[in-house]
This record gives sequence, structure tokens and C-alpha cells, in this order.
Amino acid sequence: MAQLDKNIRLATEKRSKRSIDQLTGFKVTDAFTRFSQRDEIYCRSEWDEDVMSEKASAFFQGYYMPNARSRKTDGFSQRDYALRNASWHVTNILRDVKRESEGLKEGFFDHFSLHDEGWPEPYPFESAQHATNDLQKVARFCGADLVGVCDYDERWVYTEAFCDKTKKGKPLSLPDDLPHVIVTGEAMDADLTKTVPSALAGSATGMGYGYDTITLLTLAQYIRNLGYRAYATMNDSALAVPLAVQAGLGEVGRHGLLITEEFGPRLRLGKIFTDMPLVASTPKKFGVKEFCDICDRCASACPPKAIPHGEQNDQVLNRSNLIGVVKWTTDAEKCFKFWANQNSDCSICIRACPYNRPVTRTMSRWYHRFWHKLASSRLRKLALWLDDQIADRSRHKSGWWWARKS
Amino acid sequence: MAQLDKNIRLATEKRSKRSIDQLTGFKVTDAFTRFSQRDEIYCRSEWDEDVMSEKASAFFQGYYMPNARSRKTDGFSQRDYALRNASWHVTNILRDVKRESEGLKEGFFDHFSLHDEGWPEPYPFESAQHATNDLQKVARFCGADLVGVCDYDERWVYTEAFCDKTKKGKPLSLPDDLPHVIVTGEAMDADLTKTVPSALAGSATGMGYGYDTITLLTLAQYIRNLGYRAYATMNDSALAVPLAVQAGLGEVGRHGLLITEEFGPRLRLGKIFTDMPLVASTPKKFGVKEFCDICDRCASACPPKAIPHGEQNDQVLNRSNLIGVVKWTTDAEKCFKFWANQNSDCSICIRACPYNRPVTRTMSRWYHRFWHKLASSRLRKLALWLDDQIADRSRHKSGWWWARKS
Repeated sequence: MAQLDKNIRLATEKRSKRSIDQLTGFKVTDAFTRFSQRDEIYCRSEWDEDVMSEKASAFFQGYYMPNARSRKTDGFSQRDYALRNASWHVTNILRDVKRESEGLKEGFFDHFSLHDEGWPEPYPFESAQHATNDLQKVARFCGADLVGVCDYDERWVYTEAFCDKTKKGKPLSLPDDLPHVIVTGEAMDADLTKTVPSALAGSATGMGYGYDTITLLTLAQYIRNLGYRAYATMNDSALAVPLAVQAGLGEVGRHGLLITEEFGPRLRLGKIFTDMPLVASTPKKFGVKEFCDICDRCASACPPKAIPHGEQNDQVLNRSNLIGVVKWTTDAEKCFKFWANQNSDCSICIRACPYNRPVTRTMSRWYHRFWHKLASSRLRKLALWLDDQIADRSRHKSGWWWARKS
Repeated sequence: MAQLDKNIRLATEKRSKRSIDQLTGFKVTDAFTRFSQRDEIYCRSEWDEDVMSEKASAFFQGYYMPNARSRKTDGFSQRDYALRNASWHVTNILRDVKRESEGLKEGFFDHFSLHDEGWPEPYPFESAQHATNDLQKVARFCGADLVGVCDYDERWVYTEAFCDKTKKGKPLSLPDDLPHVIVTGEAMDADLTKTVPSALAGSATGMGYGYDTITLLTLAQYIRNLGYRAYATMNDSALAVPLAVQAGLGEVGRHGLLITEEFGPRLRLGKIFTDMPLVASTPKKFGVKEFCDICDRCASACPPKAIPHGEQNDQVLNRSNLIGVVKWTTDAEKCFKFWANQNSDCSICIRACPYNRPVTRTMSRWYHRFWHKLASSRLRKLALWLDDQIADRSRHKSGWWWARKS
């Protein structure tokens, strides 16, 4: 009987995975292998000699002020590093509360565990739809710019976590019986992305993480206060991008980043695994795959040539790549080496992306709506040509940002 | 020579205090006595038998879920408490990082000390004006909705702090040689203030504190990263309202709250004491004193009658009042007793205040601008009459908020 139940469950899972892939357009081959966080490029910089270097160490240390390598290059002055490093501060505090005592690096290698006791019994929602409406309302109140829900999909969950102390893999502490994943998106400062590459622009990432942390901790505590289980995760525990696509937030671009209709690729992602009764969102398609097929602005703009030109494929460049998925695959080794060399994260691919469309005085909302319609139609080549003529994707000086009224 | 220097300093201080009072309109009498945090009503609920009660304990415990006294009354259900308590969660974590180990309750009884090492030498700003421009830019980037600067004014600094462990006064750890105070304002959710009194509405306060904490920690770390000293304080160390008025954020209303042009009384305040070179803001007058002279909507709406009708005076009702300042004085004992009785904070005075003007579809921006002009003119009685006719200051049901699109 138990075996029969298991067989039915497995068959249902297989069917639902096929249908979610039909909805998202994901092409997962038989070679598919789940990912270990140990192979993520940041983790590799702590154990893999192919990635470890003095510059890589200096890159990480530079996030703390006395070690910042401030210099005369535009965007890399003390003032720029001062803001960049401060923007990470709250995330770092919350990350490290249990670091010394319990070896946890929350939000990065471990899910958040900073929670108070919730309610002993689950709140009796009228229906899963009512619960989902409340969740949407609360997520936005807690600061999420976007929110969606998908079913749990083990494929995107890490096979193991990374241990901050031993610098080796360790068992994942995320339960595997939570049926839903809430995915949240936190928009990053549009003006700052115009100044990449710079230490200054890293402040958009830092504050993005800060707001992400707050939204996730508050939202997960809310769900626990209702009497359900909720595990908030950020860079830890699972791959965010495929879950975000399944949760209807957007599509994947050539640069490997999630592209949303609302903020393009200018977004930080968070995810909460829960048993709160929820209705899954429908994956959203607005022609990103087809547009990226004809656009390679990110690939051309990438200094270390880490983003591929050409068609999607399932080629694997190094151990930081996911095996068995047909997609555009970024060379994380080249990407990270560039970060280490310039002593700051990059994001030129975000600045160069036509979907990165900050609303400005000169380019008004109606034009962006019109452009989106064009880009998702058969006239996408016209959309790209138009954007090449009109959009200013050049690097702005850091002084431009500092002087700009906000 | 040292004595002469001291005499000059004292004379300058006396002169500048007179002139700041001329700018703000504060009337400080010879009886003026600085305030001890020990006499603040929340602290008194921990040591003063006149304020301590079972209901007061239950009120504080209700901020943690298993103890929440959820009930059938509208706005006090489990769902409402679940959100209210979650909204405080990040503030609570950051407040308690050093609570057990060092006895600090940061942001409430003690200034924040959760900081990384900054830069060893001060950043050479071209001028104090340049530094102030940068500060404004960064404060808004870190999430402040309003920001201003005033000179250090010892009168509003507590004579002593409150000790979480001994429940007695203890020496203030804030240095007294920092020449400037940055005051930040964090707007609270406008829709939620329509549902007061309710546990649900307390979520506006909770998230307000959350964002306040993040802004303060990030901004203070930024100033330290520039090489200056910076001490971030929230409810601790000094009275926020007089400093906010001196920093040009707004004026004090009949209800004792700061009233701003931008958000009315719907605001949380933070303050950073610093030696960063800064230009003080000019106190802003837009007729609040004169308007509150003819308006007593908050006093009439307050269930425990804690807000006075009539003229400003220097009457002292109990030890939670500041001695020697002519103003409208709230009876904190009556106010807090009402909170304890309903097992939630209140804010009816915010809902009833004509300056609490959320921009809605029916009342557009131009009308609010017109109303502000009228309220600050000799036609203020007309402004009040008009608002009485048009504005809906009634309590909205919690379900209205939950169902409202955001």
C-alpha cells in the first residue's frame, strides 16, 4: 500500500514537472544533475584552487572598510566604497548572528533561523485563494516589489549546502516536505545601474539584499504566526532563478538573470518554503527567449566575455554550471575573475540589457509600454533597433549619481 | 585661557539656544529640567507601581505570538496579530543582538553599537555644504523619507538611560561632544492608520520601526566609513520630537506628535549624533501651532482623554512630562493605560488629525496642496470646516485593509 502510494506520488510528480516545463519552456535533458552549493563560484573561491587567488580574497575583504582598495578611478573612491560597504551592513549583521556560536551564515549558506515561536495551530483560511490573496497583500506590505508562488520542485534545490567552517559540503537543513515556494523580488536602484562597473553601483546590490532580508524575515515570521511552517532562504538552499520563473515573476535572459516586465533584470530574489495553503501562479511569457535570440548586447558588453553569443545549448563550461539544462550558460569563472580584478562586483550585463528600462523624464511610461509590446511581438527586431537608437546604455560617471536629486 | 575658552563656548551656546528657540517657537521657562528616560511611560511600566499592571505585562507579551490575545473584535484576530507581531520582528532581532551578553537593548534603551570598523581618517569634503548634500542623497537611498540636520542641543538629551537588567537609571553612553544631530523620518502606512485602534494598525508602527532601524544602521555605518563618528539612536538617548523640529522636519501638534507637511503625524523618527561636518537645516513653520489652536479633533477623539483641549501651558500632569516647556501636554499615564486595556497600541490621534492626509483617488494631490495653503493662512477655520465636511476620519474595518489592492 505504501509502495503504491509512493508510485502514485512519483507519477504525479513526473507529470507535474513535465507540465511546469511546458509552461516555462525549460528544456531539461536526461543528463540533468542537481546542483551542490559547493560548486557555486563564491564557495569555490574558498576551496577550489582554480578560483582562489589573492585578488579574490582582497575582493571579499574589500567589503569591510579598512580593507577597501579605494583609488582615483571614477566610482572607486573612498566615498563610493563607504556607501557600498554600508549598504551591506544590515544584511551582514543578520547573516552573522549565529555565525560564531553555531557556524551558520544565514541567507548565504544557511536558511534563516532567526524566528520567534509562531502560533500552535494553523489559521483556518476559507480557501487557498484567500490565503494567497493575504500573502500577496502582506508580501507587498513587507517591502516585496514582486511576489509569486510555485510548487516545490526538488530539481532546483541544492543537493548539499556549503559549510562556512569546514569549507566543505554539508547536509541541507531545509525540510523536503514543504509543498510551496514563495518567490519575492526586490527592485534595485535604477540610477545606480547606469554607473556600473563601480564600487558605487554595488550599493544597489547591497541595499537590494538588505530589503530582501527584511522582507523574507518578516514574511516568514508572519506565516509562522499564522501557524504554518516557513523557511526563508536567499542565496542558500536552492537556485532562485528557475523557481522565480515557475512562480511567474519573469523569464530567463541571455545573461542568465531573471528578466521581469516591471524591472527588467534589476532585481534581487528571495524564496520561502512553506506549507501555507497557496495557489501557484502561472508562469509568465512575454517573449524574452525570442528577444534574446536576436539580441546579444549583454554578451558584447561583457569585458571578460563570460556571456555566450549564439543559440541556447546544454554545454557545460566548468563545475559551476548546471548539468542537463538547455539554456544560455554564463562562464562564472571568467565573470568572477573580472570582479576580483576590479575589486568590486560588476553588472555591466544589467546596464547593457534593453529590458533594463528605468523610467526617466525623457523616456516616459507610455514609451516603455509600447516598447514592451513591440519587443514581445514579431517586430522584436524593430524594438531592438529602436532601443539601439534611443536608449543611453553608456556608463555614467559616479558624480552624476551623487549630484542627481532623489 | 582654558576658562576663557569655556566662557566663550558657554556664551555662544546660550546665544544659539535663544536663537534656535526663536526659529522653532519653543517656549522654555527657567523651570526647565532635562528628562530621564527612567520617567518615560514604557520604562515606568517596568518599575513604577503607578503604571505597572497585569494588563501592561500582557500588552508587552502580546507582541510575541503565543501570548497574543487575539479575539473576535474587528482588527484583533489572529491574522491581525500575526502581521503586527511579524512587522516588529527585524527590529526585535537587531535590538536583542547584545541583550543577553551585554545587557543592551539597542534602539530602545541604548544607542546602536552594531557597527563595523570605519575609515581611520575623515574624508576631506570640499565644504560642509558638499557633505550635507551627500548626506541627504545617502539618507534617502538608505530609505529615509525625510532628513534634516540640527546642532547638538543638550536640553533634549536624556540625563540618564534606562537599564534593561536592573530596571533603574544608568549613565548615558552617548558622547556629549558631537556637534550635529541628523534626524530621519520614516513614513507609516497611510491605509493602516484608518483602521486604528486595532492590533492590525500596529503593523504600521512595527514596519516603521523596521525601516527606521535599517536606515539608521546603514547611514551611521556610511558616516563611519567616511571616517567620522556616528551614533544612531531611536527611542533611546534623547527626545526625538524637539530635535526633529530643530532639524526642520515639521512642527509639534496638539497631540504632541511631530506634524510634517509631507506625511502629517504619520511618521517614525530616528537620530544620529555625529561630528561629520554638516550645515544645520532651518526649522520649518507652516502654521501648525495656529491651526491646532483652533482644532481639537485629536483631543475629542481620544477615548481616555489624554490629549488636552485649550491653550498651550507648562502644566505638569505626572513624572512622564517634561518640566519647563510651554506646550500641549499629553497624559502618558492615561494614554498607556488605554493601550494596556485594549492589548495594542492606539494612534486614534493620528487617524483624527486633519494633517493625516493620505493621497487617495477621491482626494487628489492638488486638493491636499490647496488645503495646506488654506490651513497655514488666516483662513484656517475654513480649512478645518472644509476638512470636517470632506475628510473621512472614521475607523475603517480591518477587512477593508486586507481586501484593498496595494
